[in-house]
Formats: sequence, structure tokens, C-alpha cells
Amino acid sequence: MEFKQITKDSGCGARLGVIATPHGEVRTPAFMPVGTQGAVKALMPEQVRGLGADIILGNTYHLYLRPGHRLIAEMGGLHRFMNWPGPILTDSGGFQIYSLGALRTITDEGVLFQSHIDGSSHFLGPESAVAIQEALGSDIMMCLDECIAYPADRNEVERALARTARWAERCRKSRKTSDRALFGIVQGGVYPDLRRRGTEEMTTIGFDGYAIGGLSVGEPKELMLENLASTAPLLPEDRPRYLMGVGTPEDHVEGVFYGIDMFDCVMPTRSARNGLLFTNREKVVIKNARYREDGSPIDSECDCYTCQNYSRAYLRHLYVTGEILAMVLNTIHNLRYYLRLMERMREAIREGRYPRFRDRFLRERADPGVVCGTATGIGG
Amino acid sequence: MEFKQITKDSGCGARLGVIATPHGEVRTPAFMPVGTQGAVKALMPEQVRGLGADIILGNTYHLYLRPGHRLIAEMGGLHRFMNWPGPILTDSGGFQIYSLGALRTITDEGVLFQSHIDGSSHFLGPESAVAIQEALGSDIMMCLDECIAYPADRNEVERALARTARWAERCRKSRKTSDRALFGIVQGGVYPDLRRRGTEEMTTIGFDGYAIGGLSVGEPKELMLENLASTAPLLPEDRPRYLMGVGTPEDHVEGVFYGIDMFDCVMPTRSARNGLLFTNREKVVIKNARYREDGSPIDSECDCYTCQNYSRAYLRHLYVTGEILAMVLNTIHNLRYYLRLMERMREAIREGRYPRFRDRFLRERADPGVVCGTATGIGG
Repeated sequence: MEFKQITKDSGCGARLGVIATPHGEVRTPAFMPVGTQGAVKALMPEQVRGLGADIILGNTYHLYLRPGHRLIAEMGGLHRFMNWPGPILTDSGGFQIYSLGALRTITDEGVLFQSHIDGSSHFLGPESAVAIQEALGSDIMMCLDECIAYPADRNEVERALARTARWAERCRKSRKTSDRALFGIVQGGVYPDLRRRGTEEMTTIGFDGYAIGGLSVGEPKELMLENLASTAPLLPEDRPRYLMGVGTPEDHVEGVFYGIDMFDCVMPTRSARNGLLFTNREKVVIKNARYREDGSPIDSECDCYTCQNYSRAYLRHLYVTGEILAMVLNTIHNLRYYLRLMERMREAIREGRYPRFRDRFLRERADPGVVCGTATGIGG
Repeated sequence: MEFKQITKDSGCGARLGVIATPHGEVRTPAFMPVGTQGAVKALMPEQVRGLGADIILGNTYHLYLRPGHRLIAEMGGLHRFMNWPGPILTDSGGFQIYSLGALRTITDEGVLFQSHIDGSSHFLGPESAVAIQEALGSDIMMCLDECIAYPADRNEVERALARTARWAERCRKSRKTSDRALFGIVQGGVYPDLRRRGTEEMTTIGFDGYAIGGLSVGEPKELMLENLASTAPLLPEDRPRYLMGVGTPEDHVEGVFYGIDMFDCVMPTRSARNGLLFTNREKVVIKNARYREDGSPIDSECDCYTCQNYSRAYLRHLYVTGEILAMVLNTIHNLRYYLRLMERMREAIREGRYPRFRDRFLRERADPGVVCGTATGIGG
């Protein structure tokens, strides 16, 4: 993996770059649609690509349980299995396992957990987390880390941070492939000094890229931004920076401002299936009676297939009657909204006007109508 | 509407033709995918067209209740509302209403029924059935008829047949548009002489095309074929003939043999959503464990997007995990199977070898593994 920085905005931390992977290039800042179980929910890969996605995310926890990483390896790897020829980043499975709550026990060795599907017992350690991701054929693998919910006392966060460092070391040692990237994850809760310590530990071990984990897990938005703002600039300039599982369009605009290159979140796809549609101006809850006779598109400024061809009245009808096509068309719109926002941010950085872009974006979305807190949990 | 017969097989009743409608041409024999509620379930219109469909079917009962024909008319008609620019045939709503059982009362005036959604009371008569279809902007409208379940005693069938003729007369008188087609429906249960009488009554009134209704409603397959074989040749040579709501691929091959030009059935789309996939050789129940590690496509002879890009193992995984994409990919395959069969039949007629094609097709599907009886009912 190679990360090439094309330009940096002089007025803030925003960077424009390209990540080269064995399966193609990723333009950064990049949003990665989530393909939890080997599919970006409701869409064919060609549609995902057509919406502007360079890379997607796969969930190790889900794929390990069903259909199993060995089966996927036998079928030629995840790319071939799901017909997505582009880059894939996989998470370590850790985050989903922590979300299991009572169903898991964490020790220094790793995590003992019970499947949410059938209750069967499984063990995931740093070595197996890497081995599973290698079997899947991931282009960018993530270290197993220990994520702590908010609020948590400082001692607990510190203990998890130390374990995350030991696990990261073991992940790095256990990898068998050299052409696939491995990212370290910085934890540290909402304690900037612990985040600093986490950054030092990760960069000392040395990874192909660095992620900020454990944000947007229930903490107030200000604390999230504060920790993002203080941590991002500490990460090495010459490596991709990934803000895990966050979040709203505003979060992405802020993340890029502080120097983040990669994002993932289930918000656009999950909201779409719940009939919540993103626009720059208003929140569209498509089932509302006010859209019953509304012949206009979701967003007249949007260039997506859904907005080019369908009215709010039709989309409301599909949603209310439970048509599968509602899920497809809504997902197309929301993903395009997120991916187009990335395009607009990349353009603003290229033209050296990112701070102005950010100010205007945040001002215009006075009432974004989007709930904070985007933790994925088991649902994927 | 104009029906042009291109050629007729000399060895049987099979005909090759083209129906010209205000929204384009329909190559016959034609299969019409069912778009119950203003969408062919799980697919975008471009996909339906890409699979080879010239025309789709819309359900008057469902669209009348939700979102309402007046709303659809305000939105520019069904074609624009659902983004399908091609021809649309609409049923009269009658068949769905009869399926309501206890929820409806039939008199000479029409049908009083209660909505399956909210129990509200509605009335549908011959005049309103046509008016609703005109509001939808249908290219081919169907008369309101009275369909009788099997078994039924002869007197009951005779009474319904007489009422169907009176309603057909009223339908014809009440139509306001001249550029849209109106088809009459021949009922008569499993009594060939009543079918003959129904045919005479319909042709005396005179319609743009003729349908055979009330078959595949529970009667043995032999009785269905016997009535099809005796009725189809009685219908005027120079008008399209439509076998309503039937059925399996074998039924279509037989229907074409006896001179049928148009078919519709929910079987390919509904089976797809239930994970039952059509091939020439075997029945593929995709959830079966035997496909867990099967790297081959559903059907190696199929040219559809699903078969070109995905393994049975992947499709099984999607189905078992409840992914929406399973519905999309399965529907693409099954619809393509049905539409490709029509292409193969048209080719065989063009080349004057339809009887041989039919014999071979029926012989090779020794165990088609498909259940007969395809009545749509309320589910659409």
C-alpha cells in the first residue's frame, strides 16, 4: 500500500491524497460504504461504484460467523465472492464483539464470545483477527483493539489502552502477507493525554496507516470533536488517517478539517432503509403524509439516479407499501449524498478553499436533523 | 392499438407478432412481469427492460387503494409515476377482489368490498374499473369480469359467465379514450361449451384483444390444458390473445402452442423472493445446505447478470442472512429465465420449428419441480 499526498490546505489540516492498493486506488478524503455481510445492503457492486465509491468496508465479525472466512477463501476471497473488484478494508471484528455485552469475556489473550446468531462459542485474538482478514483477502486490515463505551473511568480506559498496544504488537508480528496493509488503532476515550499516549504507542510499533477508534460511542459531540482535533494532528503526516464508524455529514466535514482521510459509517445505508433521506436543506422522513402529493425529487440539487427519476410521492408510496425498491432507491440517494460530499470536499481542498467550504456547510445546515452517535453494534 | 401478425407456425397454433401501443411495441409471444403496486418487486425499470421485457402489468386493485388512481393521474400517470416509459397492461381489479372472499359482495351492479389494508368499504363496477384504468393511463385495459374458483357447479359458472358478458358490454360503452386498448375476458370454468359461449359473447361485443381468464385457479393441470386447447383457437386470429395469471414455464410453452400471445404471472418474481430459482435442468432451492460451497452459477447456460457474476454459495449466503440484495439478484435471474424462454419461443416460431421446440422442452423438464396453480390473490 502506498499513500500519496497530492496537496494540503494551508489554512487547516485537510489533505488531498491517493491510496494505492492491490485492487486499485482510493481518492482521499474517502467515504467507505459498509458492506457488513459481503454486500452493501440493497445494492449491486456496480451501483456502489457508480455512486462514486472507491473502497468498501467488510465486517470481519459477521463474515467470520456467516458464511465463514474459510469458505470465502475457498471461493477466491471476498472480492470475487461478492463481485467487488475494488479495494476492501476490513475491521477486526472487535467492535461488534464489544457490542455483544454479556455475551463476551475479554482477557489478555483475546475475546471469548458467543455468536448472536446461535449462541455458539468463539475466540478471537490478535493473531486470529489478522488471519481471518488475510483469508478474506482484505486490502487494508485493522488491528484488534479494545473499545470502551462512554462514560468510562480513566483507569479502565488506561487499562484498555495498554491492552490495545500489546494486541497491536501481536497483530503486527502475526501478519503473513506483505502486500496488504495493516492499520493500528488509537484508543484513549475522551482523555486527550491518553489519546496522545495511544498515538505514540502505535507509531512506535509502526503501521501502514492509523485509525482513531472509540469515538462516537455515546459521548457529547463537543468531546468527540475536541478529541478528534487534538489527536488527528499527532498522527504521521505520511500515512492515511481513518476515523472509525463516524458519522454525520457534519462529522465528516469536521474530520477532514482536522486531517482525516478515511471514513465509514452505516448511517447513510441504515437511514435509507428507515426512510430518512439526506439533503443539504432539510431532513426528509419519506413516510410523512406531507410528501403524499409531492411531485418533486428528494433533493433538486442531487445528481443521483433516484432524484433524477422519482418523486417524493412515489418514494413515499414505495416505502409505505413495503416495496423492496424503496430500500434500493433510498440507499442510492443517501450513499450518493455522502460520496458527493466527499467529492465536494476533495474539490475544495484542491482549490485551497477548504476552511471556507467547511464554514459554509456547517452554517447552512442549521438544522441538520441527524442524530449523533453512530455506533454500528451488531446490526452492521 | 394495432396487432401485426408476422408469421404463424404451420404445425400448430403458435403465432409471432407485434402489438403497437402508445408507449411502444410489444413482441409476441410476450411475458409481462407483474408490477403489483407500481414497481416490479425489487427491480428498477431499467433492469426490467434490460432483462427483455417489452411490457409490464399493473394491478388496479392495489393502485386504487394505494396510492390511489387520482394521485397517480395528478403525477402524470402510472408510466411517469413509476418511471416505466414502455407499455403497461392493467387488470380490472376483479381477480384480487374475488380473492378477498368474505370481504366482498357481488351484485349485478358490481362488487362491494372491504380493503385488505384498513377494512374501509369500496365499490367497483364495470364503469369505475375502466375509469380507474383510464386514470392510470394504461395502454391495455381489461374488462371487469367475474372469476369463479374451482370446483364450481355448472349453474354457478353459467351465471357468472352471463354477468361477465353484461359487464363487458358496460365496460365497452363507458370507455372515454380511443387510443388505449380494451380487452374482453372469456370465462366459463372448465366447461368447454361455456368457454365457447363466452367467446361468442365477447367477440360479438367486439374488443381490441381477448383474454382467457379463470384458469389455473385450482383445477387439475389436464383440465386447464384441455380448456386452453379448445378455447384459444376460437378467439379471433387478428387480435392478441392473453392467458391471464398462468403460470409455469411449461404452461407458457403449451399456451404458445395453442396460439396464446401474452402471459403474466407472479411466479418468477415471487419464487425469487422465496429463494426458488428456475433452470432448465433442476429446481434450485437456494437456501439448501448443498449449495453452501457451490462455486458455480445458478444456471451455467443463463446469460443473466446474476449468473454471470455470482456463485450459488454467495446467493445462498445472501438469502440465509436476509440481505435485500438476495431478492434483487434472484428476481433478475428468474425474470430473465421467463423472458429468455419467450425469446427462444419467438425464435422457434420464426424458424418454423415450434412443435419440435415444445416437445423437446417438455421432455427435458421431466422433473420441473414447480408447483402448478399460480393464482395471484391479494399478495399481488
